[in-house]
Amino acid sequence: MMRPFVRIGWKVLSDDWQLVIHGGAGGISRESLTSEREGWLRDTLERALQAGGSLLGVGGSSVAAVQAAIVLLEDSPLFNAGKGAAFNAAGVNELDASIMRGSDLQAGAVAGVTRIRNPVLAAHAVMVGSTHVMLAGTGAERFAAERNIELVEPEYFRTEERWRQLERVRAGESGFELGTVGAVARDAERHLAAATSTGGMTNKRYGRVGDSPIIGAGTYADDRSCAVSATGHGEYFIRLSIARTICALVELGGVNLSDAAKDVIGGRLAGLGGEGGIVAIDASGTIVAEFNSSSMYRGWVSAGASPEVRIFQDH
Amino acid sequence: MMRPFVRIGWKVLSDDWQLVIHGGAGGISRESLTSEREGWLRDTLERALQAGGSLLGVGGSSVAAVQAAIVLLEDSPLFNAGKGAAFNAAGVNELDASIMRGSDLQAGAVAGVTRIRNPVLAAHAVMVGSTHVMLAGTGAERFAAERNIELVEPEYFRTEERWRQLERVRAGESGFELGTVGAVARDAERHLAAATSTGGMTNKRYGRVGDSPIIGAGTYADDRSCAVSATGHGEYFIRLSIARTICALVELGGVNLSDAAKDVIGGRLAGLGGEGGIVAIDASGTIVAEFNSSSMYRGWVSAGASPEVRIFQDH
Repeated sequence: MMRPFVRIGWKVLSDDWQLVIHGGAGGISRESLTSEREGWLRDTLERALQAGGSLLGVGGSSVAAVQAAIVLLEDSPLFNAGKGAAFNAAGVNELDASIMRGSDLQAGAVAGVTRIRNPVLAAHAVMVGSTHVMLAGTGAERFAAERNIELVEPEYFRTEERWRQLERVRAGESGFELGTVGAVARDAERHLAAATSTGGMTNKRYGRVGDSPIIGAGTYADDRSCAVSATGHGEYFIRLSIARTICALVELGGVNLSDAAKDVIGGRLAGLGGEGGIVAIDASGTIVAEFNSSSMYRGWVSAGASPEVRIFQDH
Repeated sequence: MMRPFVRIGWKVLSDDWQLVIHGGAGGISRESLTSEREGWLRDTLERALQAGGSLLGVGGSSVAAVQAAIVLLEDSPLFNAGKGAAFNAAGVNELDASIMRGSDLQAGAVAGVTRIRNPVLAAHAVMVGSTHVMLAGTGAERFAAERNIELVEPEYFRTEERWRQLERVRAGESGFELGTVGAVARDAERHLAAATSTGGMTNKRYGRVGDSPIIGAGTYADDRSCAVSATGHGEYFIRLSIARTICALVELGGVNLSDAAKDVIGGRLAGLGGEGGIVAIDASGTIVAEFNSSSMYRGWVSAGASPEVRIFQDH
């Protein structure tokens, strides 16, 4: 067994960990992105990597790291998760999130919540503090309140930009970026975790549940294969059990993670007409970010390396 | 290509189709089952097989067959789905259902509904009549109402037997049978379908979503591998993506359906401490019913054969 830690005084510094995040995949073009907005996006993604990476660097768990990264993205109005969530057809922000740890396949999820500031924290509370995996609606909010998870007024989630997007989609426009956020990590103890959080599709039907809170679709983690967080047109991701299928290809198909991601995103998803992407990390620390849309907000960081952030195919 | 139909006059008779159903897995013992109740159970399962089988026999689709079988089980107070659903901790019957067809991986699901008489029909309406896969709560009920799916007063679902079970679970007893219902079929055109419907766990937390409405967990169908419907302690089934994992073993692992079911139910599920079972059918028509509990209500029928019903391991 390798020793995963280097002890310096009371500190525990890990020499082998990885974190990959995404902030949504979609059809955003270089022309439509102002340099000011691009700067904010890159800065926020980098801070999310630093938040999770600093935990991993002192021996924190992959579960703690994916939570820390996602909380930062949920709190930013730039992404479609937490503050800044998309509006559904009823003009309400309905949020979904899930989390899974690969060491024991424990998982938690919340769906259709409207008052939980950080849905990923509620998903974590379901994972560690209930006998259930998935709680929906007011039942999930009651549970979160009991666990001292912060509740906010529904207005907290409202941003003028998302409201204008709803108005434009209602007027018949399409093609807005989706902006779901997600993270996967491998910690110094070689344990994997994955988490995903979203406001769902703009103008989605009231009560629609996408792939993000569905273990196996938007999120999966198994130390024997890999951890995956997905973003895109959720219905296709559910029908293909995207996250579980990528892990199954690695576990059962004898395929490496990169090829598994290409098979599922470039092959199966594209074959059905679906669009989106995934970030993933396997048991040996290989990281992958794969998407078939023109862009995916994404970044990664690992022990001893600086955070890297990308938006388009190549930069 | 084989010709799947034998035409007799205007009728279309199929010579190769299969249907397998379940009515839940659990710890029921021979001693606790009166012969009168056993008779009702076997009779209802047999009628569900006849309902689905008669459709398949005249060239009906596997999707139509699994719906017909499940509607009959939902309408019976004997099973924990539709009428006769278990009560949640708030004393409410919250119902979940899903359906998937293997030819194009289309799927539909409803979760946490309290007024839809036959949740499987609502799941089907979501599959064929919406751009979404999963609708929850009142959003799902509004959609069902628009599609002329029958709504009932919540009291419709109440049975005294389930209410007494809730009281006994609240008093600390455990071990009640779960009673989820499900069906898988392969039609004359060699297309697979799967569907599952449930009232969930007795005394479940308000808002809890189990595996039944989750595509990949409780239900999966892909013509390239198999169709699966699951029943049992749903949280384990979600964490293992049971239905998708069985299909992945067949598709990617080079494992036959029977061994895949044994791996997942006898191996992975039992390894986590979970209990339950599945019914499944593969692309060549092999049928499997696998469970690690003491009993699973189940039955099967195929072209040219009489329906068979089982409750315990051997009869």
